[in-house]
Amino acid sequence: MDADIRTRILSAVDDHFEQEIQFLAELTAHPSTRGNEQSAQAFMAAQLADRGLEVDSWQIDVADICDLPGFSPVIGTYDDAMNVVGAHRPATSKGRSLILNGHVDVVPAGPLDMWDSPPFEPRVDGKWMYGRGAGDMKAGLVANVFALDALRACGVVPAAEVFVQSVVEEECTGNGALACLQRGYRADAALIPEPFDEKLVTAQLGVIWFQVHLKGMPAHVAYAGTGANAIEAAIPLIAALHEMETRWNGPTCRHADFAHHDHALNLNIGKFQGGDWASSVPAWCVFDVRMGIFPGQDIETAKAEIEEVLRQAARENAFLRNNTPEIVYHGFHAEGYALSEDTSARARQAIGALDGAHEAVNGGAALDRLAITATTDARFFGLYADTPALVYGPKAEAIHAFNERVDLDSVRRVTQATALFIADWCGLEAAG
Amino acid sequence: MDADIRTRILSAVDDHFEQEIQFLAELTAHPSTRGNEQSAQAFMAAQLADRGLEVDSWQIDVADICDLPGFSPVIGTYDDAMNVVGAHRPATSKGRSLILNGHVDVVPAGPLDMWDSPPFEPRVDGKWMYGRGAGDMKAGLVANVFALDALRACGVVPAAEVFVQSVVEEECTGNGALACLQRGYRADAALIPEPFDEKLVTAQLGVIWFQVHLKGMPAHVAYAGTGANAIEAAIPLIAALHEMETRWNGPTCRHADFAHHDHALNLNIGKFQGGDWASSVPAWCVFDVRMGIFPGQDIETAKAEIEEVLRQAARENAFLRNNTPEIVYHGFHAEGYALSEDTSARARQAIGALDGAHEAVNGGAALDRLAITATTDARFFGLYADTPALVYGPKAEAIHAFNERVDLDSVRRVTQATALFIADWCGLEAAG
Repeated sequence: MDADIRTRILSAVDDHFEQEIQFLAELTAHPSTRGNEQSAQAFMAAQLADRGLEVDSWQIDVADICDLPGFSPVIGTYDDAMNVVGAHRPATSKGRSLILNGHVDVVPAGPLDMWDSPPFEPRVDGKWMYGRGAGDMKAGLVANVFALDALRACGVVPAAEVFVQSVVEEECTGNGALACLQRGYRADAALIPEPFDEKLVTAQLGVIWFQVHLKGMPAHVAYAGTGANAIEAAIPLIAALHEMETRWNGPTCRHADFAHHDHALNLNIGKFQGGDWASSVPAWCVFDVRMGIFPGQDIETAKAEIEEVLRQAARENAFLRNNTPEIVYHGFHAEGYALSEDTSARARQAIGALDGAHEAVNGGAALDRLAITATTDARFFGLYADTPALVYGPKAEAIHAFNERVDLDSVRRVTQATALFIADWCGLEAAG
Repeated sequence: MDADIRTRILSAVDDHFEQEIQFLAELTAHPSTRGNEQSAQAFMAAQLADRGLEVDSWQIDVADICDLPGFSPVIGTYDDAMNVVGAHRPATSKGRSLILNGHVDVVPAGPLDMWDSPPFEPRVDGKWMYGRGAGDMKAGLVANVFALDALRACGVVPAAEVFVQSVVEEECTGNGALACLQRGYRADAALIPEPFDEKLVTAQLGVIWFQVHLKGMPAHVAYAGTGANAIEAAIPLIAALHEMETRWNGPTCRHADFAHHDHALNLNIGKFQGGDWASSVPAWCVFDVRMGIFPGQDIETAKAEIEEVLRQAARENAFLRNNTPEIVYHGFHAEGYALSEDTSARARQAIGALDGAHEAVNGGAALDRLAITATTDARFFGLYADTPALVYGPKAEAIHAFNERVDLDSVRRVTQATALFIADWCGLEAAG
């Protein structure tokens, strides 16, 4: 790429950065928790259409995807789950095509009184924008859009197909990204600006979600006997799951990219509900568990071990011996994915292009690598569509927590690097 | 009492027993969980008025009772809390007056799929009536009404004031019974037909309810560190509370009426809620605890010890050290009460009258005594109104549990014994 166009692209991002912050604030103001993404998606669809992209907006149908590899089980229908894709169709087709993917769904805000300001009223303080989803990952979605804007401001567009995807369900199943694959969207590479501190993600974990349901005979507390309490019966099960977590994190079990990491696989009791009345011995509880697995670790084998661990612990408990725990899967059935294991020329080239873009924006500083202890939608492209998926996004803090915030300087750099990456990967042609 | 009237009273209960079952079924069909007692109370008020009682129906006002001994703290107002009292005013006043008390509120049904039939669609199978509240304690309320009916059917009424009380809030505070005291209802004795197997309750425990709130900094599960999980942080607190429970049950701590009982004081984790999302480390949880105390055990001292136990346990936990548990009291602040310690002549006489009534119904079998490991509204009469309070009601099973049921043969016997007790205690006069 010649130095002049590179300089003009970087300047174009700077020139439009106030608008980009505005766009991010508006998108973050949509409280797009799971099931409530419609207004955010309508906003995205309108913005993509304004930019001349061909917009495809559709409701996910479980029947279309439930037999595909990578599908995660869900409860209920997807009546409220809309995906949006904006397609750029070039005049020429001399370059390599690209998917710019991001998710619009955000995790729940949690108790509002733990936020310094309302989670869906984004505010800027210094270089930070605060708000649920500002970092994870609306800043990334916005960077995708404004990277293309910067090119257009320079009078050029990608010389290959580019699909800007705004998907739902990333935070619980990934079925939004899967539905994009099923709908036929394919490209030579995918870029997902998840907020991992401007580093390139070389490997990500798999994630399994499961729910444990305990039910049994309760009583008036006056007659409470040892072990009759469904809430307390969960405690030894949780302990047994943590022992399993320790085993799975053992040095001999680790994937190479996580060899240095003592505790990459986190088991999280994320939600717990049980009982109805202080003076009734609780007859039921339900708790939600998230467990990580390494790339290459088989999901069905992992599930079988989880079930055996729970069965074994249940045998040692008075309440549970007579009330076997029920295990329900809904949510993540996500395999791990390691870009580092993709030895294809395309992967090498895509990584090289991103290295170059990052260095150009950062005064020659090398693009750092990172193995992350979470999952992203990258797995769908990498594992099920033979498409190298590069996860590279801005710096954010307190994602999934209170006072989530994203570093706007970082958003600007990622937007610039994304624009340069597109220019390099797709090539450029004159805007129509 | 002469043998003829006694026989006629017993027969009158038998003669109306089908109606009594009908009445019980209709009352049980009202789903009178806390806050939802209005229709049940309207039914009770109408039934008492139909019988010529002077009906007083009023909304409890916290301001009226909050400074009285025995008050339990509540959250919110009592906009929906109605008490009903039906007063019998005799022509003569030669006998001793009586309060016939019962509560109309019932505890939540819990998961409906654990019931063999819907909890608020009472059904009779053999000698049992099934339904939430059928035993605890709508059968008792109904026995009070039909005992008076039996007298009237014999052409007589009590020769002293009798107050039939249908109160709310027994299952969480007792503030319904307290409001009856505050409103001025007083008598020479009180009878409360709580479902304790046709035994006379000599002592009941006190009960304290408290809520423990944990809140702290959460994170994306990818970064979960040891001890950062608010749900799991509750586990050592629960363990510490159980250690306290063991201490309080120690042989040297026991009230005389419970000397034989290894574990009269039950600590119950009755409700637990925490977290919002499987893949977010939970930032909060709340759990509801019920703890028993012995008669004579001071509530403020007990609360101070509970708080110290929680504080101490919190100091040993990574999460809790930086996020001190908050303890909120709402619900029972109930002292224990021992009728066995009431050495007054009135108490002796009332117990004697009930002994006689029970024996007359049960072929001379003595009335058994029982120290119960729960609380009842009896404490208000006994502790704060110098009124011996006799708890004596039918046999029920699975109260506060699934498939709660009451023994209808037992309800018949208790109704008969109650009628004889009224006749003896209050004396009789010709119906007007």
